[in-house]
Amino acid sequence: MNYEILNKIKSPQDVKKLNYSQIDTLCGEMRDCIINTVSQNGGHLGANLGAVELTVAIHRAFNSPEDAIIFDVGHQCYAHKLLTGRFEAFKTLRCENGISGFMKPSESKHDPIITGHSSNSISAAYGIYRAKKLNGESGSAVAVIGDGALTGGMAYEALNHAGEHNGNFIVILNDNEMSISQNVGGMSKSLTKMRNKARYHRFKFAFGRFLNHIPLVGKSLYKFFYRLKETFKSIVYKNNIFSAFGFNYLGPVNGHNVKDMESLFKIAQCYQRPTVIHVVTTKGKGYALAEQNPNDYHGVAPFDIEIGVKPSNKVTFSDIAGRTLCEMAENDSKICAVTAAMGSGTGLSEFEKKYPDRFFDVAIAEQHAVTFAAGLAKGGMKPYFAVYSSFLQRAYDQIIHDCAIGKVPVTFLIDRAGIVGEDGETHNGLFDVSYLTSIPNISVYSPTYYDELVYTINLTALQGGVNAIRYPRGCEVPSNAFKIDFKGDYTVLNGNGDCVIITYGRLFSEYLKAKEADDSLTLIKLNKIFPISEALVKGLKNCKRIDFYEETVKSGGIGEHLSALLLESGFKGEFNIHAVNNEFVPMAKTDVILKKLGLDSENILRS
Amino acid sequence: MNYEILNKIKSPQDVKKLNYSQIDTLCGEMRDCIINTVSQNGGHLGANLGAVELTVAIHRAFNSPEDAIIFDVGHQCYAHKLLTGRFEAFKTLRCENGISGFMKPSESKHDPIITGHSSNSISAAYGIYRAKKLNGESGSAVAVIGDGALTGGMAYEALNHAGEHNGNFIVILNDNEMSISQNVGGMSKSLTKMRNKARYHRFKFAFGRFLNHIPLVGKSLYKFFYRLKETFKSIVYKNNIFSAFGFNYLGPVNGHNVKDMESLFKIAQCYQRPTVIHVVTTKGKGYALAEQNPNDYHGVAPFDIEIGVKPSNKVTFSDIAGRTLCEMAENDSKICAVTAAMGSGTGLSEFEKKYPDRFFDVAIAEQHAVTFAAGLAKGGMKPYFAVYSSFLQRAYDQIIHDCAIGKVPVTFLIDRAGIVGEDGETHNGLFDVSYLTSIPNISVYSPTYYDELVYTINLTALQGGVNAIRYPRGCEVPSNAFKIDFKGDYTVLNGNGDCVIITYGRLFSEYLKAKEADDSLTLIKLNKIFPISEALVKGLKNCKRIDFYEETVKSGGIGEHLSALLLESGFKGEFNIHAVNNEFVPMAKTDVILKKLGLDSENILRS
Repeated sequence: MNYEILNKIKSPQDVKKLNYSQIDTLCGEMRDCIINTVSQNGGHLGANLGAVELTVAIHRAFNSPEDAIIFDVGHQCYAHKLLTGRFEAFKTLRCENGISGFMKPSESKHDPIITGHSSNSISAAYGIYRAKKLNGESGSAVAVIGDGALTGGMAYEALNHAGEHNGNFIVILNDNEMSISQNVGGMSKSLTKMRNKARYHRFKFAFGRFLNHIPLVGKSLYKFFYRLKETFKSIVYKNNIFSAFGFNYLGPVNGHNVKDMESLFKIAQCYQRPTVIHVVTTKGKGYALAEQNPNDYHGVAPFDIEIGVKPSNKVTFSDIAGRTLCEMAENDSKICAVTAAMGSGTGLSEFEKKYPDRFFDVAIAEQHAVTFAAGLAKGGMKPYFAVYSSFLQRAYDQIIHDCAIGKVPVTFLIDRAGIVGEDGETHNGLFDVSYLTSIPNISVYSPTYYDELVYTINLTALQGGVNAIRYPRGCEVPSNAFKIDFKGDYTVLNGNGDCVIITYGRLFSEYLKAKEADDSLTLIKLNKIFPISEALVKGLKNCKRIDFYEETVKSGGIGEHLSALLLESGFKGEFNIHAVNNEFVPMAKTDVILKKLGLDSENILRS
Repeated sequence: MNYEILNKIKSPQDVKKLNYSQIDTLCGEMRDCIINTVSQNGGHLGANLGAVELTVAIHRAFNSPEDAIIFDVGHQCYAHKLLTGRFEAFKTLRCENGISGFMKPSESKHDPIITGHSSNSISAAYGIYRAKKLNGESGSAVAVIGDGALTGGMAYEALNHAGEHNGNFIVILNDNEMSISQNVGGMSKSLTKMRNKARYHRFKFAFGRFLNHIPLVGKSLYKFFYRLKETFKSIVYKNNIFSAFGFNYLGPVNGHNVKDMESLFKIAQCYQRPTVIHVVTTKGKGYALAEQNPNDYHGVAPFDIEIGVKPSNKVTFSDIAGRTLCEMAENDSKICAVTAAMGSGTGLSEFEKKYPDRFFDVAIAEQHAVTFAAGLAKGGMKPYFAVYSSFLQRAYDQIIHDCAIGKVPVTFLIDRAGIVGEDGETHNGLFDVSYLTSIPNISVYSPTYYDELVYTINLTALQGGVNAIRYPRGCEVPSNAFKIDFKGDYTVLNGNGDCVIITYGRLFSEYLKAKEADDSLTLIKLNKIFPISEALVKGLKNCKRIDFYEETVKSGGIGEHLSALLLESGFKGEFNIHAVNNEFVPMAKTDVILKKLGLDSENILRS
């Protein structure tokens, strides 16, 4: 792509040199580039389009990397990538060995930390800020956090800690009135009030242009501003949520007016106090379809720019999970569904419509989601918390403390378990097997097929206790050659050879291909993956060679648990575990990754 | 103990029948009982003494168990136990098979959930509340949360979720101006302001007595109150932190005046909105020594009531860790210490005094602590986060996402690893080995001796990377008979028999006793417990029998990791893992528990 201005931006320094007419052109070009790239590669569209002017203003008012700028979640960091030397490489967004969809320090010195999970930006930025002060460095640190990410508890932990310090630590609230879907919670209503107030007491920037040309900052200048504080008063709301934590509050300001934002960011740098600047943006700004339907344009697969995204007609595991809960809810008034801002992603949209009273979107708050679900269970309900594997990591303690110790009947529907593909390291669901099986009193299932998922979800409602059902992103691969029974703890497809392969979940359907090609293989499918069935261990005791395959880290996986049981049983054969070898797996297409990891069926036939 | 009134209280119903003069007597008796029991058994003193009148007022204004009352952390639930049929059993507080120091559903229908970890009360109570409404039940749910627990992020997640609902969900803020030690954070300053305002606009309870006699609630009554809203206005502060989340705010009220609290709790039940009641209490109330030195009387060992608690002169692992950091900090200006409200418990008091600039108490906020530490590291510092094993469970995701993926050099000093004794299920550090070793890029150490702890902490500063050093509660058991080298990954004490015992951490010093008694044993001590040394696996390959002992859950422990490696290496011998068999371990003295689990040295000699 060839852009008049964007092509020449090699670093944030180049952005500072432009006049406002050039800035307008630049913003248009950045939008065009983002829309084009995302329409081809897929990615996060709405939030990134909303943050174009904001990012330009930030790079004019601050000095990255001397000032560490952290964009929370990274759904809003594409514009930042375009301005920090990654325009050329941007066409490889989310491709193998390409540009990550999130901030990534190994990519650029302008990305201070990884931001794949929500709400960590204030904590990290404040740590960097304090380190800079201890080292006597001049730069600052800025956290740019969305109103969605502000529903995550750790953001408040960070505000509370940072709020007591007297220093110029800056948080920019990018308020687009949405998290991933419509924002929920009392705080969201509060922000709406603050926005509405702003429409009344319109912020005028009486001397915005003047401030714009003043170099930063110096004590005498600060005193000068201090004398002008009466003028500032109109833009400072006392007694809001941020001031309760000790922060100075500036705003709200129009997040699509670069000049206004720049002024306010420079004013913010004059305070010797932690300061929040409230910026109001429009999700999807500049692409009409996305502005009108922000929900549909949060995260998208490749699409046609003229037509827009089309609803996929592929049925996924998520759809089946949601549909099953709906069916169960019709006959059982105790069934509840809980989500942490992922209602659509986890297939719960229909449930939300049909059973709004029993549908709970708690915002990006996995810790609360688990304990809230435990509370529902204590009150006699049957809660299902549908959540992505890598996000449930946030609630490890709550699963132990609030569910498992007391055997409180909560079921986790763990979506995106295993390799997820283009979202990369932070989003792969490679740890849930290890962390869930470390916890007593949990039964873990890993269905391969839709029918099996339906059966298992129904099973958990009947049997009670703490349950986890994990399934991959995407679709089942049904088998034509075999009819698979999945009602016991495990299923054996006997072969006449010495070789036994054990696996579970998505990999089983992959290995059925190998079984079709070579019927001598004995293939065992685990249905309930943990605790491991004693009968299975007994049955394996005299095997000569067992190969265990799983799409998870090896450490703490089912393969290791089984190793220990086999050794204890007196097993003397050969046992090999094929899994992810305790490393983080970078982005690529899922099938490419599985092949690289040696987890595809061809590899089985070879070995 | 024989008390005039307390002896007769069999349930909260009995509390409702008392007049205020009897209430005074009751509160005195409860205090006496708590002081006596804790002086004998140890436990949490200050917070419990502060909550006596509050608990009495709650049980007069609400109806437990129809109304579910949840005391956050349970540091404030002793009075509740005394009023809910557990007075007789209270003398067994924190003893094996006795009354738990925390809320425990298996003990009483008046304990809705387990509350050993901080900040989960609002989530659980709100879940129970919504379930009750769905079931058409009449009762409500009340979360009683301290200002300390309010620094934990999940409390805000819950406030945000509950704040958007129109129902009479009630949160009581027990504000004793302290968490475990002096409270930190911007929010703490805010609460101080709110308390001070109260001293000015003194809340008069003009018709307190009148309200006191009105049965609850009915629409007409609600309307009546609504007409009186002008009168209420003086007690309702708008625009504070709670109103930002959508909560109605009442208070502050004197937390040692039963009558006033009762009135306010009844008023609170008239709103069709979520409501926070701000109660101000004094930690240690009624025991002069504890009022004067609340820090020393938070959690105590048995003590003499006349003399008070005496500082222990026993040096512990925590002390050594803190001392080592101080020594390192003297020569290395990059060393920082981070704690989540556990500065004293983790031995950092001296560090705080000597290096206040590099000491960070982030409040009860483990998630933030980890990511903040990662930020410090990104800024060039060498942060050490000292934290109890079971509390670090809260930050599993942050260890993965903000430390391990980017190999950000943070070291975790994991205190209270293994069995902790009287605090029971919620506080045992039995999961850290499993959850830490599931994460790539972390080195895990488990020193047995103080010298080894000192060596290992220094080592981590030199080698960088993500490190975890875990050590038990209490003191080392030094060896006279053997001089142990701990500088490699593992240490072998050869014997001439066939039997090999492998272990690490505290258990090694236990098993040295066995080695002293029977020198034929080969005893191997792991110093770096993960990743497991390849040389070790090679060396073990031809052993006939190996017994592996560890003080952690078996599932995902080092024994299982080693099983897999041994099997892969072609090991054909016998391998037995002795660990905690995937269950939660209830309270008792640590040595009693280890014996029960078969992890003591006598058991080794037997087998």
